[in-house]
Amino acid sequence: MGNDGTEGRSYRKAAVRRAEILSQAIALFAERGVDASLRAIGAAIGVSHAALRYYFSSRDELLVEVYRAHEQVEHGDAPQDGVSAVRLMERSAERNRTIPGLVELYATLTTDALQAGQHPLTHEFVRDRFRLLRSHLAERVRTGQRAGAIAADIDPDDAASLVIAASDGLQLQWLLDPEAVDVRRALALLERLLPSSPADGPGAA
Amino acid sequence: MGNDGTEGRSYRKAAVRRAEILSQAIALFAERGVDASLRAIGAAIGVSHAALRYYFSSRDELLVEVYRAHEQVEHGDAPQDGVSAVRLMERSAERNRTIPGLVELYATLTTDALQAGQHPLTHEFVRDRFRLLRSHLAERVRTGQRAGAIAADIDPDDAASLVIAASDGLQLQWLLDPEAVDVRRALALLERLLPSSPADGPGAA
Repeated sequence: MGNDGTEGRSYRKAAVRRAEILSQAIALFAERGVDASLRAIGAAIGVSHAALRYYFSSRDELLVEVYRAHEQVEHGDAPQDGVSAVRLMERSAERNRTIPGLVELYATLTTDALQAGQHPLTHEFVRDRFRLLRSHLAERVRTGQRAGAIAADIDPDDAASLVIAASDGLQLQWLLDPEAVDVRRALALLERLLPSSPADGPGAA
Repeated sequence: MGNDGTEGRSYRKAAVRRAEILSQAIALFAERGVDASLRAIGAAIGVSHAALRYYFSSRDELLVEVYRAHEQVEHGDAPQDGVSAVRLMERSAERNRTIPGLVELYATLTTDALQAGQHPLTHEFVRDRFRLLRSHLAERVRTGQRAGAIAADIDPDDAASLVIAASDGLQLQWLLDPEAVDVRRALALLERLLPSSPADGPGAA
């Protein structure tokens, strides 16, 4: 109602500013890891606490939106058609090697998500993200089964959960002990179970 | 030096009190999940903040010691000789189902551990725990290889990292979405890759 012109402009201006803050926060987290408080994040990227509260109602909302914005940037990558579930997770893990701060953000979000009562927004975001990822990977397993590459009696949903879990857990172990864990090689073991094409089929010694 | 008798008694008294606090904290975490501050934990188990600080120098120390005490109780269980790496993780996941609060504590510790600068004690504890668990499971994989049950070209350390990662990640997904994820079934898929005995060997359809 009323002065739509200026409201439209200020809405667009706010959206642009919000996107700027998210992009600064992505860079901050990638470089320095996740800081605990909204106030500390504001100080680090040079935004007042009040301004930050104007764009994000809570620390949880900011963390979720930073991760969401980061994933949207990621998905601007090359298409991933015809790639196996395991290979897809391998590629994602490979990218994450260069940005440990965002793996730390991911770990923070999943840990917060377990405390659904205190972090309802984070819980919903992480739960729904896992659901989407599982259904996406399960579809790739079904494709492998139709092509005869993956044993027909493997449950696609179980396989999808397993591949995501392995990828998450291996990245965590690697971050804690980079010399001791090889994410790519350990994940590649799963290719024996869920090969990407008949040519890559099980060839155990 | 000096009054050894009373010092010995008060040392023993302090050790008993410390063990009591740990056991109350295990029960608290199991029931209600991890609370953020030492003060809140003290309030919940009826110990003053000052008393808590007397027994544990920091929140990190308390959380690490609670987890360590919990694991020591767990390992009082039946011996696990001759059990495969995957089966061992399945059993542990099965026990954890009944105590989601302690899985939450575990997630908190691993997330804190990623921030080595802010949580040096937690980082060391979690990193060393993973090292020990990996070497333990790698040994079981080697046993499987000697028995001819596991392909000789599988790297035991890679396999150990993978099994731990899968178990950790699946428990997390299950806690967030109990209807959608079956930890036992998804982990059992790994038994195709790393069977527990020649009789269980790869028998894909």
